[in-house]
Amino acid sequence: MMMQRYFAIDANLSLAPNDIYHLQKVMRKQVNDQIEVVYAGVVYLCQIESITGTSVGLKVMAQLNCIAELPVEITLGLSLVSESKFNLMLQKATELGVGAIIPLMVERSVIKLTNEKQAQRLTRWKRICKEAAEQSHREVIPHVQAVTSLANINLMDYDLKLLCSPKEKNVNLKEVLSKGIDYDRIIVVIGPEGGLTIKEEENLIKQGFLRVSLGERILRVETVPIFILSIFNYLLMR
Amino acid sequence: MMMQRYFAIDANLSLAPNDIYHLQKVMRKQVNDQIEVVYAGVVYLCQIESITGTSVGLKVMAQLNCIAELPVEITLGLSLVSESKFNLMLQKATELGVGAIIPLMVERSVIKLTNEKQAQRLTRWKRICKEAAEQSHREVIPHVQAVTSLANINLMDYDLKLLCSPKEKNVNLKEVLSKGIDYDRIIVVIGPEGGLTIKEEENLIKQGFLRVSLGERILRVETVPIFILSIFNYLLMR
Repeated sequence: MMMQRYFAIDANLSLAPNDIYHLQKVMRKQVNDQIEVVYAGVVYLCQIESITGTSVGLKVMAQLNCIAELPVEITLGLSLVSESKFNLMLQKATELGVGAIIPLMVERSVIKLTNEKQAQRLTRWKRICKEAAEQSHREVIPHVQAVTSLANINLMDYDLKLLCSPKEKNVNLKEVLSKGIDYDRIIVVIGPEGGLTIKEEENLIKQGFLRVSLGERILRVETVPIFILSIFNYLLMR
Repeated sequence: MMMQRYFAIDANLSLAPNDIYHLQKVMRKQVNDQIEVVYAGVVYLCQIESITGTSVGLKVMAQLNCIAELPVEITLGLSLVSESKFNLMLQKATELGVGAIIPLMVERSVIKLTNEKQAQRLTRWKRICKEAAEQSHREVIPHVQAVTSLANINLMDYDLKLLCSPKEKNVNLKEVLSKGIDYDRIIVVIGPEGGLTIKEEENLIKQGFLRVSLGERILRVETVPIFILSIFNYLLMR
């Protein structure tokens, strides 16, 4: 049984109200039980000293050495697809070490969200990533950005920009990555079902994106982030 | 829109009754429409010449050149877990090119199946793999074996035998595969939640299995087959 892990909301290692609820009512933790609490990328082994409906008193027993994070920050630009698939992509990407998620409103996105809906979704997406990060014992919660368009991605942030496309017939992912991953921050843009439009792809290529195929295989859209991140995990294994 | 694909049940390219139903009632195909039909690993472009409730007459227009299959046959030994997770693993493994599946009854398998239940499940598992193979435009349906124990895997069939284990701290998958994949038939055994027991692992190692870790990451059991097969897809990209 692995130790329960929570992300704290401040440097005093305070837990969010729903985590206090989870710890007491779901995990049935009591005084003297131990949990792991993460703040600012550092993992603390803590003992519960007091517990009430609204607060948990913790004593730090040790700072743990952890190496669950990938040495390269990988951002996924995920085109909006149906809610259940998008949520699954967030959960799995978090499990596999993604650094940040940019939800992309593209031409063929099947859902169109009002501003109000976008704010609601963003809250839910952040919660999904937090919970998945806790369960997979990450040290950081992937950052989920607000919904944006392809034109508004801040490209200055990345030193390798990849665009996955079944239209690409010449260059596959292996040709790009087999030279070694000498990058600090990578972004990978993944289209919706039906792919990005030719115009959308052209605009990304003009901005320095490298278009790559993922091989001969026809993958479901929700499989693509898992596929990509599994490969990065492999290549970055020490 | 990709062309609809079905696996035929004989060399005359006859379709199974449920596929005839699917073609007519779900896909609403009519005379003169085209579909792809696969038999014995060969893909035929066919035109529908006649259609009744119980049969479909097809004319072969062309034999298609396809290269969707991995050049190495990968068998996954999957420990039985809950039905929904196991079904998801079958579907995703098929999508990612698995050659064969061996469902394994191990000590920590959460479900115990009677012989009758096993036969029912096997029928369902085969259907899941067939449908996933059609959707991902495979040329073969992965072979699903009957439920077996670890002791009864036919090991003569494989020239690389891997056992994924979070207990392994020294050898990771990359160390084994980065030397190149000079194998014809590989088997990868994946434990249930909680892993294989120490005794189960020892027995496999005695029989020539190489125990490997998948890196520092803590993966959910249903993510592991996708992770492994994505890496093989990457390494085998041409």
